Amino acid sequence: MLNSSDYPSLAALAAVLRHGSFEAAAQALSVTPSAVSQRIKALEERMGTPLVLRGTPARGTDTGRRLARHMEEVGLLEAQLAHDLGQSGGPATPVPLAVNADSLATWFTAAMAGAGEMLFQLTLDDQDHSADWLKRGEVMAAVSARDRPVPGCDLHPLGALRYYAVATPEFAARHFPEGITPEALIKAPSLLFNEKDRLQDNWVMAQTGRKLPLPTHRIPSTHGFVDAALAGLGWGLNPEVLLTPHLEAGRLITLAPEPVDIALYWHISRLSAPVLAPLTASVKRAARAALIP
Amino acid sequence: MLNSSDYPSLAALAAVLRHGSFEAAAQALSVTPSAVSQRIKALEERMGTPLVLRGTPARGTDTGRRLARHMEEVGLLEAQLAHDLGQSGGPATPVPLAVNADSLATWFTAAMAGAGEMLFQLTLDDQDHSADWLKRGEVMAAVSARDRPVPGCDLHPLGALRYYAVATPEFAARHFPEGITPEALIKAPSLLFNEKDRLQDNWVMAQTGRKLPLPTHRIPSTHGFVDAALAGLGWGLNPEVLLTPHLEAGRLITLAPEPVDIALYWHISRLSAPVLAPLTASVKRAARAALIP
Repeated sequence: MLNSSDYPSLAALAAVLRHGSFEAAAQALSVTPSAVSQRIKALEERMGTPLVLRGTPARGTDTGRRLARHMEEVGLLEAQLAHDLGQSGGPATPVPLAVNADSLATWFTAAMAGAGEMLFQLTLDDQDHSADWLKRGEVMAAVSARDRPVPGCDLHPLGALRYYAVATPEFAARHFPEGITPEALIKAPSLLFNEKDRLQDNWVMAQTGRKLPLPTHRIPSTHGFVDAALAGLGWGLNPEVLLTPHLEAGRLITLAPEPVDIALYWHISRLSAPVLAPLTASVKRAARAALIP
Repeated sequence: MLNSSDYPSLAALAAVLRHGSFEAAAQALSVTPSAVSQRIKALEERMGTPLVLRGTPARGTDTGRRLARHMEEVGLLEAQLAHDLGQSGGPATPVPLAVNADSLATWFTAAMAGAGEMLFQLTLDDQDHSADWLKRGEVMAAVSARDRPVPGCDLHPLGALRYYAVATPEFAARHFPEGITPEALIKAPSLLFNEKDRLQDNWVMAQTGRKLPLPTHRIPSTHGFVDAALAGLGWGLNPEVLLTPHLEAGRLITLAPEPVDIALYWHISRLSAPVLAPLTASVKRAARAALIP
């Protein structure tokens, strides 16, 4: 499908999608913007389909993103080659990863820091959907709650992130004076990370045996979620590691003694696995230190 | 354009977009999923255009989202009416807002907590782009760095969020032994919130007078950004309020003594302003307490 003569165009495409504009890509590649534009146009003609959606920022079409990822994989192989030949590898190619926001907020930074000299390009999504980015070929690896392998990918169990349902003591006294009843739950403001988040709904089902329409604040940020609970805006499930100081100080209380453990998995494209071996080792180390076995 | 008989359909549409599925919307409205589906189909026929993109989650078309927002505005007016008539207002309608992630992480939670009994539906975006959500009619108000009013909206200056460029002392010693030079900057890993983030590029321009291609980690989370700096992954600009404990403890150092102040504005749809007056008052109070005048 590709010719070796397509690689300058592929590099231009990857740079445009990484930097978001033809100008920035041109500067990163030390060529003129019009050279970048010509190279991409040539590749679009070869492929017979648009690769870049012009705009601010410039975005890739499905085919464009898949081709850019190929270029990034080649870049990693080149970095590995340079390393094996004892040469300095030039500027590193960022590794695109999809990570659930709660992992980034609790243990994934340590995993990145322990992986050596890599650059990372993170996409955050819900733990039930982060593997979709891998399925679509937009990232090389993902931290996800998905427990079946993505086609073409390896799966490494990482352990579980532990959550508790919490609120301030004042919130619980006001909204749940008679405990966690369906009548109270349909009136008490709850927290929702985003429309894909099922943690609160599943917890309500476990507590009451019913699916209930919950009044919700939508707060798509892990620390924002904890802060919203602390401010008395609502109740919600938060990672234990972020709660410990607040539970110990009595600023938050658990609404039920049972934790919710969400098992997480490292999904990695088999093609990328060899060059990302140091990252996989670091991810497993950091997960072992932070997650429930 | 609308008939009063369209309101059940509008309520069904708003519920589907809020909850992400026909089933969840049906439950929230206490009707069957097929009733929800029929109502939306009838409205789509009336409008002559699709309103919902079926999928997981269900999403709105441009027209569908605009109609849902109208229903949310009507819901707020109803809540105000119930309050004025001294009746309990039933379940509250969430207020859709666009907020830059750094504001949510530093002062906006206090603004929401001080606004009384409202539910909030937050969308996070870069401070230079959060007002776009208001322009597209998808939110009722936004915290943004945009300093010109959005058509049909009021503008309230809030003060400035102060940033410093920081890294660990080890990172600075290793990557900037001779100070912030162009030669060092093009090799030292930097942090980028997302492809819209211009803070680091602008700082480099201010420090060196040049636009430079920076090697970057992309970390789309405010606390993730601070954590990445603490882990020595890169240098980047972070809100002062999140840095203070780390600067005092010597875990991070500033790369230049000058702060970067980003002025922020509260943009609010003129139609929504009356019912959101308590929120606007609370936003101004919280901003006064946290931002630089």
